[in-house]
Amino acid sequence: MEKLIGNAVVGQSGGPTAAINATLSGIIRGAMELRDNGTVEKLYGMKNGIEGLLGENLVDLFEVFANKEDLKTLEHTPAAALGSCRKKLPAPTADDETFAKIIDIFKKYNIRYFFYIGGNDSMDTVDKLSTYTDLCGYEMRVIGVPKTIDNDLPITDHTPGFGSAAKYIATMTQEIIRDCAVYQVKAVTIIEIMGRDAGWLTASAALCRRAGVEPDLIYLPETVFNMDSFLNDVRAALEKHPNVVVAISEGIHFENGDYVGSANQSGATDVFGHKYLSGSGKTLEYAVKDAIGCKVRSIELNLCQRCASHLASETDLSESVLVGKTAALAAAEGASRVMMTIDRVSDTPYKVEIGNVSVSEVANKVKLVPREFINEKENGVTDACVDYLLPLIKGEPDIRFEDGLPVHFIIK
Amino acid sequence: MEKLIGNAVVGQSGGPTAAINATLSGIIRGAMELRDNGTVEKLYGMKNGIEGLLGENLVDLFEVFANKEDLKTLEHTPAAALGSCRKKLPAPTADDETFAKIIDIFKKYNIRYFFYIGGNDSMDTVDKLSTYTDLCGYEMRVIGVPKTIDNDLPITDHTPGFGSAAKYIATMTQEIIRDCAVYQVKAVTIIEIMGRDAGWLTASAALCRRAGVEPDLIYLPETVFNMDSFLNDVRAALEKHPNVVVAISEGIHFENGDYVGSANQSGATDVFGHKYLSGSGKTLEYAVKDAIGCKVRSIELNLCQRCASHLASETDLSESVLVGKTAALAAAEGASRVMMTIDRVSDTPYKVEIGNVSVSEVANKVKLVPREFINEKENGVTDACVDYLLPLIKGEPDIRFEDGLPVHFIIK
Repeated sequence: MEKLIGNAVVGQSGGPTAAINATLSGIIRGAMELRDNGTVEKLYGMKNGIEGLLGENLVDLFEVFANKEDLKTLEHTPAAALGSCRKKLPAPTADDETFAKIIDIFKKYNIRYFFYIGGNDSMDTVDKLSTYTDLCGYEMRVIGVPKTIDNDLPITDHTPGFGSAAKYIATMTQEIIRDCAVYQVKAVTIIEIMGRDAGWLTASAALCRRAGVEPDLIYLPETVFNMDSFLNDVRAALEKHPNVVVAISEGIHFENGDYVGSANQSGATDVFGHKYLSGSGKTLEYAVKDAIGCKVRSIELNLCQRCASHLASETDLSESVLVGKTAALAAAEGASRVMMTIDRVSDTPYKVEIGNVSVSEVANKVKLVPREFINEKENGVTDACVDYLLPLIKGEPDIRFEDGLPVHFIIK
Repeated sequence: MEKLIGNAVVGQSGGPTAAINATLSGIIRGAMELRDNGTVEKLYGMKNGIEGLLGENLVDLFEVFANKEDLKTLEHTPAAALGSCRKKLPAPTADDETFAKIIDIFKKYNIRYFFYIGGNDSMDTVDKLSTYTDLCGYEMRVIGVPKTIDNDLPITDHTPGFGSAAKYIATMTQEIIRDCAVYQVKAVTIIEIMGRDAGWLTASAALCRRAGVEPDLIYLPETVFNMDSFLNDVRAALEKHPNVVVAISEGIHFENGDYVGSANQSGATDVFGHKYLSGSGKTLEYAVKDAIGCKVRSIELNLCQRCASHLASETDLSESVLVGKTAALAAAEGASRVMMTIDRVSDTPYKVEIGNVSVSEVANKVKLVPREFINEKENGVTDACVDYLLPLIKGEPDIRFEDGLPVHFIIK
C-alpha cells in the first residue's frame, strides 16, 4: 500500500477512565515514530472530541509533549486530558452539512489520520466518518481505539480502562470487608458498582477471593433480580457470620425489566418534598432494614471507580499505551475503519497481542458476562470468571507523588 | 520508679482507620523490647476491645507475631485487626460489677499494663479504668493511644489515622475534579466527607491546591450553613467555569442547629447517643437541581475514606507506629492515666515528638477547625490551614501486592 503522507488528529470521547490518557499517550508515541519516518508531520488533539474538531479547537500534541517525560505523567493522569463529548453524528448522507464541514477542516489541516478513543458511541462515530470519507472519495485512515471501564465491547478480550476500574473495585471491596469485620453486631453492607447492562465491574468485587475474602453475595444485571431470593440469601449469610457484604450492579433489575434503583420503596422525601430517586443500593438498604431489621448501609463507589488513577493496573496502563501506539502504526500500514482489539493469546502465562476488527462488527453491540461466569444460584461468580479477570488487575504503576499527591499532566 | 513486672493487654476501640493497626504494631514492637528487658512476659490482644477482655477472648500477640515481618504487613492492613467495640463503661464506683470483673481478669492473667487505642470514647474508658484501679489499689499502668480519622482530639497536634484519611480525600478530590473537567456542560459535583462536628477531613479536600486545583467551595461544620449563600456561591462559581466541585462535611448544619442532611436521617443513634448522619450531599443535590437547574450529582466518600490503606500516608503510618511503641516504653517508665500525644516541634522542616497528657484533659473534649483556618466568606479554607495539613499526607508506604491486591494480615 502506498504511504499516505499527511497530518493526524486524535480525540477522546465518552466517559472518562483511568487509562484513556495512557491510550492517548500511546497514539502520541506511535505518531512520533511516524513523524520520524516522514509519514505524519503534525498530530492535532481535538478538545472535547468531535466538537473540538468542528470548532477547530485543536492543540499541537508534538509541541505539548516536546518533553517526552511528560507522556509518562500523562499516562498516570485520570480522565480525558483532551476533554470529552457525547455528540452523536448524524447518518452520513452525501449532502450532510456536519460531514461536509468535517471534510473541509480535514482538508484545511491536511488531516489524513483520524484516531478516536472511546466506547460504543465512539465506534459509531468512526463507522459513520469512514462511510462519509469513502462516499466523497477523501483518502483517510479512520481508527477507533476502545476505551470503557464497562468492558462491554465485543471481540476484544477486554477494554482499556477496565482493568484499572476493576483493581480499584477489588481493592476497595477488600478494604471495606476488613472495615466491616471489626464489630460483632449483625450488619449488612451493600456496595453499589457501576454497570447498567454489563456486570463485569461488579464481578470484579470477587477478585479478593484469592486473598481469602470476598463479598458474600454478588448480583449482576445479566440475571433477573428477585427481592425474596435476595432477602433469603442475606438471611442465610447472616447465619454464617455477622458482617455480610453484598456487591450489586447499579443496573440490576426485576423480571419485568424495571431497575431495582428506580423502584422507590423508601418513600423518603427531602426538605422540598421531592421523593428520593434512590439507587439500587439505597433501595436494597431500605428493603433489608424493613425485612430483616439489622444494621444496614449502602456504599456507592460512584465516580471514584473510574478515575482512581492512583490505583491503576499496570497491566491496563501498559496495554492501553500499546493499543494506542499500535493504532498509529497500523494506520500508517493501511488499516482503516477498524477498532483496535486486545487478543488474549495465552492464559498461563497471560499474554496478549494487539489486533483490529472491522468497526461495523462492534459498533452498537455489547458483550455481557457469560452464563458460565455466574454461579448456579445467580448470587456470585465462578472461579472461571475470577481466572479471566485476575491478570487484568495485576501490577502497580510507579506513580510520581509531590506534596503527598499524585502528579497529573494537564493539557491547557 | 520501681519496675512494674507483669503482663500487658492491648485493645482497639471505636471506628476503624487505615492506621490503627500501625499503632497496634508499634505497641507490639515496644512490648517486645519490654519482654527483652524482663518487664513484660506476655502481651495479650483483647478481641473486640473491652468486650474481649470481659469475655477473656484474648490472643497471645508475641505468638501471633513470632515472625516480625508480619508486623510490617499488619501496618498496611486497614481497620482493627483485633476487632473493635463501642462499649461504654459505667461510672467507676467501688461496688461496680463490671469493674470488679475486670480486676479479677487482670489478676488472673497478671496484667499490669493496659493499652487502649481509640478516640474520644476510648479515652473515657481509660479515665474510668484508671479511677477504678486507683480506687481499689491495684497497681497498673493505663495508657490511651489516640486514633481517629476525625483529628478532633485536643492537645495532640493531630491524631494517628487522620493523615491517611486526609490523603485519600485529597487524592480522590483531585481525581474527581479531573473527571468532572472533561465535559463543557454546566455541572455541579458535591463531595460529602465524614466529620460530624469537626471539619478537618473536609478541609483536607483543599490539599490539592498545591497541584493547582481544588474544590470551588468547601463548607465545614464549624460554621453555620446558609442555603441562600450556598446557592449564590454555586451560581458565582458556575460563572467562572462549567464544572463546579463542592466539598461538604456530613455535619454541616443550619443556624437552628438542624443538620442539612436531617431530611434523610434514619433517626437511629449509636450507644453514645450520636445521631447517624448521611445525606447532606443528597439534600444539596436536590437544592441545586431545584434552584439552578443544571446537572448535579453528589458523591459520598463513605467508608472508603477511613479504610483506604492502599493510599495511606507514610507520615501517618510511621508516626502511628512510633506513638504505639513510645506508649509501651513510657508505661514501663511509669506513665499512666495518660493519652499519648504527637507534638509538632517544627514546621520547616516538619518534625514531631511523642509526648503524653493526663487523659482527664482530653476525655470527652473535641478540637475543632479554628476560625483562622476558614476563609472570610466561610466557603473555603486558608493557606494556613493547608500549611498545617500538608505534612500529614506526605509519603507513600511501600505496600506489598499479590495478585494485583494489597496483602493484609489477619489475626485469627
